[in-house]
Amino acid sequence: MIKAAVIGASGYIGGELVRLLAMHPEVEISAVTSRHHNGKKIHKVHPNLRGLDLRFTNNYNFDADVVFLAVPHGTSMKIIDDYVESAKIIDLSADFRVSLNLYKEYYGEHLKPELIDEFVYGLPEIHREEIRRAELIANPGCNATAVILALYPFKGEISEAIVDLKVSSSAGGRRENVASIHPERSNVVRIYKPSHHRHEAEVRQETKVNAQFTVHSVDLIRGLLATIYFKMEINEKELYKKYFRYLKEPFVRIVKEKGGMQRLPDPKYVIGSNFADIGFTYDERNQRVVLFSALDNLIKGGAGQAVQNMNIAFGLDETLGLNYLPVYPV
Amino acid sequence: MIKAAVIGASGYIGGELVRLLAMHPEVEISAVTSRHHNGKKIHKVHPNLRGLDLRFTNNYNFDADVVFLAVPHGTSMKIIDDYVESAKIIDLSADFRVSLNLYKEYYGEHLKPELIDEFVYGLPEIHREEIRRAELIANPGCNATAVILALYPFKGEISEAIVDLKVSSSAGGRRENVASIHPERSNVVRIYKPSHHRHEAEVRQETKVNAQFTVHSVDLIRGLLATIYFKMEINEKELYKKYFRYLKEPFVRIVKEKGGMQRLPDPKYVIGSNFADIGFTYDERNQRVVLFSALDNLIKGGAGQAVQNMNIAFGLDETLGLNYLPVYPV
Amino acid sequence: MIKAAVIGASGYIGGELVRLLAMHPEVEISAVTSRHHNGKKIHKVHPNLRGLDLRFTNNYNFDADVVFLAVPHGTSMKIIDDYVESAKIIDLSADFRVSLNLYKEYYGEHLKPELIDEFVYGLPEIHREEIRRAELIANPGCNATAVILALYPFKGEISEAIVDLKVSSSAGGRRENVASIHPERSNVVRIYKPSHHRHEAEVRQETKVNAQFTVHSVDLIRGLLATIYFKMEINEKELYKKYFRYLKEPFVRIVKEKGGMQRLPDPKYVIGSNFADIGFTYDERNQRVVLFSALDNLIKGGAGQAVQNMNIAFGLDETLGLNYLPVYPV
Amino acid sequence: MIKAAVIGASGYIGGELVRLLAMHPEVEISAVTSRHHNGKKIHKVHPNLRGLDLRFTNNYNFDADVVFLAVPHGTSMKIIDDYVESAKIIDLSADFRVSLNLYKEYYGEHLKPELIDEFVYGLPEIHREEIRRAELIANPGCNATAVILALYPFKGEISEAIVDLKVSSSAGGRRENVASIHPERSNVVRIYKPSHHRHEAEVRQETKVNAQFTVHSVDLIRGLLATIYFKMEINEKELYKKYFRYLKEPFVRIVKEKGGMQRLPDPKYVIGSNFADIGFTYDERNQRVVLFSALDNLIKGGAGQAVQNMNIAFGLDETLGLNYLPVYPV
Repeated sequence: MIKAAVIGASGYIGGELVRLLAMHPEVEISAVTSRHHNGKKIHKVHPNLRGLDLRFTNNYNFDADVVFLAVPHGTSMKIIDDYVESAKIIDLSADFRVSLNLYKEYYGEHLKPELIDEFVYGLPEIHREEIRRAELIANPGCNATAVILALYPFKGEISEAIVDLKVSSSAGGRRENVASIHPERSNVVRIYKPSHHRHEAEVRQETKVNAQFTVHSVDLIRGLLATIYFKMEINEKELYKKYFRYLKEPFVRIVKEKGGMQRLPDPKYVIGSNFADIGFTYDERNQRVVLFSALDNLIKGGAGQAVQNMNIAFGLDETLGLNYLPVYPV
Repeated sequence: MIKAAVIGASGYIGGELVRLLAMHPEVEISAVTSRHHNGKKIHKVHPNLRGLDLRFTNNYNFDADVVFLAVPHGTSMKIIDDYVESAKIIDLSADFRVSLNLYKEYYGEHLKPELIDEFVYGLPEIHREEIRRAELIANPGCNATAVILALYPFKGEISEAIVDLKVSSSAGGRRENVASIHPERSNVVRIYKPSHHRHEAEVRQETKVNAQFTVHSVDLIRGLLATIYFKMEINEKELYKKYFRYLKEPFVRIVKEKGGMQRLPDPKYVIGSNFADIGFTYDERNQRVVLFSALDNLIKGGAGQAVQNMNIAFGLDETLGLNYLPVYPV
Repeated sequence: MIKAAVIGASGYIGGELVRLLAMHPEVEISAVTSRHHNGKKIHKVHPNLRGLDLRFTNNYNFDADVVFLAVPHGTSMKIIDDYVESAKIIDLSADFRVSLNLYKEYYGEHLKPELIDEFVYGLPEIHREEIRRAELIANPGCNATAVILALYPFKGEISEAIVDLKVSSSAGGRRENVASIHPERSNVVRIYKPSHHRHEAEVRQETKVNAQFTVHSVDLIRGLLATIYFKMEINEKELYKKYFRYLKEPFVRIVKEKGGMQRLPDPKYVIGSNFADIGFTYDERNQRVVLFSALDNLIKGGAGQAVQNMNIAFGLDETLGLNYLPVYPV
Repeated sequence: MIKAAVIGASGYIGGELVRLLAMHPEVEISAVTSRHHNGKKIHKVHPNLRGLDLRFTNNYNFDADVVFLAVPHGTSMKIIDDYVESAKIIDLSADFRVSLNLYKEYYGEHLKPELIDEFVYGLPEIHREEIRRAELIANPGCNATAVILALYPFKGEISEAIVDLKVSSSAGGRRENVASIHPERSNVVRIYKPSHHRHEAEVRQETKVNAQFTVHSVDLIRGLLATIYFKMEINEKELYKKYFRYLKEPFVRIVKEKGGMQRLPDPKYVIGSNFADIGFTYDERNQRVVLFSALDNLIKGGAGQAVQNMNIAFGLDETLGLNYLPVYPV
C-alpha cells in the first residue's frame, strides 16, 4: 500500500483527492491536513465523505510515500522543502509547472527557481516516460490540460490560436466572495479573464502555440469546455488522423459524430470521470479549424490527473482507482 | 411627485426598491444610502441599473416624503428616530411587524417597544384602510406574506397548520458566506430552518393559526412556494369560495386548473411581478387541505409590497408603478 | 461472473444500470435491449458511456443469470413470462411491489395477480433475508425508498404522516414533453402531484403508516428530499435511538449535526452514490417530529438498489460494485 | 391607440410580444392567433399572463394597424399576402432579413423574392430613418442583433471575425424534443452549431464582416453573450471612441469598467429589458480586439426590438412601453 498525504485537504481539489484516494485499492491515506479545520472530521467540510473515518490535522509529522500539495499558488514553493527528501511530491499548485521565464511573465518572482527543472510536467499523454521516473511532479492546470491535449497534435504546425473557455464555479475554489454567492454567480456568462490568463503559459511551453485565452464563467459547478480556433488548410479526415495518437490513451476520448445529438464534446458527458473528450470541426468555407475539449476540472483537470501521475510514478496500472464512468445525467 | 429615500440601498431588497421607484411615474428618488458604498454609482452594486444617474450617499440630510428602511433586522429600531418626525416610514425590516410579546418570543429584546403599536402591518389585502391613514408601516416578511394570504380565509376555523417552504437564495441577502457560494448553494434542497422560523410570528398574529414552518433552500435565485397542510372537512367548491374575497385584489391570482400543465401556483409564474398566486387541493381520502402560495420574494415579498403600501398611504392608484406582468420563461 | 441483461436500457434507470454493471467486478453484461435503438452503440443514447463496447439489441434470446426489467409500469407484467423460468428477475417497474389490493387502489387492474406473492420487496434494510432466497425481486420506487427508510422505525407507533417531496427531473424519465423542456422545467417549484401519489402504496404496505404525499418538482437533475411530518411525544435523544438500527447498514447514513453547515440531509450530499441520508428534528413547542430523507433517485432509488439486491441474491458482498463515495460538489 | 395582432402567439417570442403589447400605453391587442390553441385563454400557454382577458383565435379576420408575424422561418413568406395590403408588418421570422443571394446561401429557395427589397432591416440603431417610413419591417435575429451592434463601428475596417456565442434554451423555442428536456439540457455547454450559423448572413449584410459563428448552448433560459475576436492595431481609448455613436441610443449601454465586479457585459445584467450591453478589451500583446455583446434574446433579440420598430414606424416615442430596467438578480 502507498501511504499518501494530502496537504490542504479542505478545498475542492483537496476534497476530490481524498475521495479518490479513499477508494483507491492500493492507497492508504496517512494524513489530510488543514490549518483552519484542524481536528474536525472530514465530513464537516466535505459532506459527501460522511462515513470516512478521517480527521483534518495540522500535525505535519506524518509518514508518507507520496505527498499531494493541494495548496494555493505561491504556497507550494514555501513548504516544499519539508517533503522533498522523504516522499514523491505531486504539486497541484502552479508553482512548478513552467520554466522560470514563463513563470516570471505570468506570475512574478519565484522563491525556488533552482527546483523548477527538477519537476516533470505531469501530463501523462505527453510525458508518461518522464513521470515514471519522477520524484517531483507538477500537476497541470485544468484549462491547460484541456487545451494542451487538443492542440498538441498541431505542435510545430501552427503558431497561434484563439481559446474561448467556459468554466465552472468549482474552479474558483471554496472561498467566500460576494461575486461568488449564488444570486450573483448563477445564470451568468461572466467574463472571468478577458485576456492573458495564466494557463496560457503551460500551453505555450508544451505546444509552442501562442494560445490566447478568454475565460467565461458559466452556470456549471464542475466541468469546462475549451473552444479553440485557428486557420489551417486541412480537412476533417486529416483532422481525425491527428488524434489517432490518443487511440490507446485510457482517458482521452474522441467525440465526433455525424447526426444524432451527442456529436461533440460537452462537459456534461465527463462529470465524475477522468476523461478528457476532444472533438473538432472543419469550416471549409473559412479554412478554419475549431477544436472542442471538455473535462471535469476537479478530476482530469486536478485530482484525477494527480492520481494518474501517482499510479505511473509508483509503477501501478495507470487506471487504478480511476476507472469511473461519468455520472449522467447530472 | 413623492420624494422617496431608500436607506440601505445596496442589498437585494434595496436594489429592487430603487428599480421600482425609478420607474414609478409619481416618485422622485431623493437619496439612496449606503455607508459602505458611499459615492459609488448605483450600477457598481446593481449592474442592472446602469444608466440611472444615482449615487450612493451616506449623507442622511435629505428631503423625503417617504423613507424606506431596507436595513437588517435590529437596525430600524436604532435609526428610526431620525425620520419619524419628517416623513412617512415604510420599514422593510422585522422590527415593527409584531406585538411586543411575539417579538420577544421570536427575536428577543426590543429597543423601541413604545413605537410598535404606532405601526400598521402593511399587508394591503387585510389592512388597506389602516394603511391609508398610516404614518408608520411595517412591511411584511416574504414568507409571511405568502402564508398569511393563503391562510387568512381560514382565520377562526383552524388552529394549526404545517408550512413547508421552498425559498430562493436572494432571500439570504447579499452577504459573503462560504455556505452561499455557487458550488455549495446550487443543486441543493437544504434545510435552512427545520422549525420555529421567525416569520411564524407574523402568521400567528394575523391569522391566529399556529403555523409551523420548515424552510428549505432550493436552487432558485428568486421566488418562493409555501405548501400548507391542515385537516378540515370541506370540499374543493367551498375552498374556491374561501378565496372569492381576493377576486377584486389587483395582486392576488387564484391558480387552480384542471388538466393541462399550469394548474397550481409556481414561483416561476410570478417572477418580476407583484403577484401572489394562491391555489389549493382537497385530499378527500384524508380530509386534508393543501394550500399553495407563490410570490417573488423581492417584489410582493418585499419592495413591491412596500411600493404598494406607499401608493395607498399617499392616496395614489394602488397599482401605480407596479403593473408589471411576470417575465416568463426566466 | 454473473451474466446480466438489462431490458429497456435506453431510459435513465436503464443507463444507470448499465453504468454500474459495467464497473461491477463480478458481472458480465450479456444484453442491453431497446426496441427503438436496436443496433446503436450505447453511447448514442448514453453519451457518458462512450468507450464501452456495447450495442442495443432487440434480440431477446440471450443468456442471463439475472434480468433487470427497466421498463415502464405495466410492461413488466406483460413480458415477465419470457424470463421467469431462466433467470432471477429484478423488476424496476411498479408492477410487483405491492399487494393486489393496494395495486388496484393506486394503479388499477393487474395482469398477473398470481405472481405478486412470489415477489420479494427489494428493500435490503428491511427484507435482506428474503432477498437472499429470492428469485423474483420488486425493486422499490425512489420516493418510497426514501420515505420507508425514514418511517420504518415508527411502524406501529404512528398511523399517518404528511410527506412533502422535492424531486428531480430525471425521475420523469427520458420522454419528450413540452412541460419538460428546459425553459419550462428550470427554475420551478412545480406541483407534480398534489395528493395520492402512487408511491404511497409501498409506504403503507411496509410501514403501516398512511403517508400522504405531495410531490414538488424542483430544479435538480438527480436526487430527492422527503420531508415528513407527524405528531409524537418524544425527544431528540430517543429519535436518535430509533435510527440505531441502521448503524451497521452500509448504505444508510444518519445526518444530524449541531452547528456548522451540513447538519441535515440534502440530496446534494449523496449524488453518484448508493447512500440514503436520514435526519430529523424535534419541534418541542408543537410536539412535532420532522424527518428528512435524501437519496439519488437513479441509484439508491433505482439502479443502485437493484444491484444491491443482485449482490444479496447471488451471495456476493452486498456493497460490491456500489462503494462509490458521492461526487461533490456537483 | 394602435391595433396590433400577433400571428403565432403561442411561442416564446409570441408570448413576450403579448406581454409587452399588453403593457404598452398606446396599443390595443386585436388578435393573438394560434391554430393549435384556438379558443384557449392566453394563460393556458403563457402562465405568467394569467389575468389578461385574451384568448387564442384562429380567426384571421381581424382589424389591425400592425401585424407581428411570430411564426417559424419559412412561414411568413407563405402567409404575408394576407396582411400586406391592410397593415404594417413586422416579421420576426428570418424570411425577409437578407438579400436573395444571402438567403439562398444560408436558407435555400425563397417563395417571395420580389418582396425582399420592400423590407427594411429593423435594427433601429442603424436603420432608424428607413424604419420611420417602412410598411414592411424584418426584425433581426437575436444573435445577429448582438453581433451587428458590436461590429458595426468596424465596418469597412475589418474583413473577418470569429464569433463565439453562448445562447439560452428559450432561443430553441417551445418545441418538444428529447435533447431539450431538462435532464439533457441542464448543466451543458453543448455545441449547437459548430460553424455556418444562419445569423451570419445578417452580419455579413449589415457590417460587411465575414463573421464566423460557433454557437454553444449554455444553462440559461434567457439571454446570450457574443464574444468576438479579430486582429487590429488599436488601443482601448480608440476602442472606446468607436462606441461613442451609441451614447444617445436609448437601448445600448457601454459596459467597460476597471476594477470591481461588473466590468464587462453579462446577459445577467439585461434580463427583462430591451438593453444591448457592449464591452471590449484590447489584448496588446497579441494586437487582438475582443468584443462582448449581451442581450435578452426574447426582448432586444426579439419582441422588444419589434415593439421598438413599431414605435418608430408609428411616430411614437421610441422607448414607449419598453422602458423596463432589467430584473436583477434573476
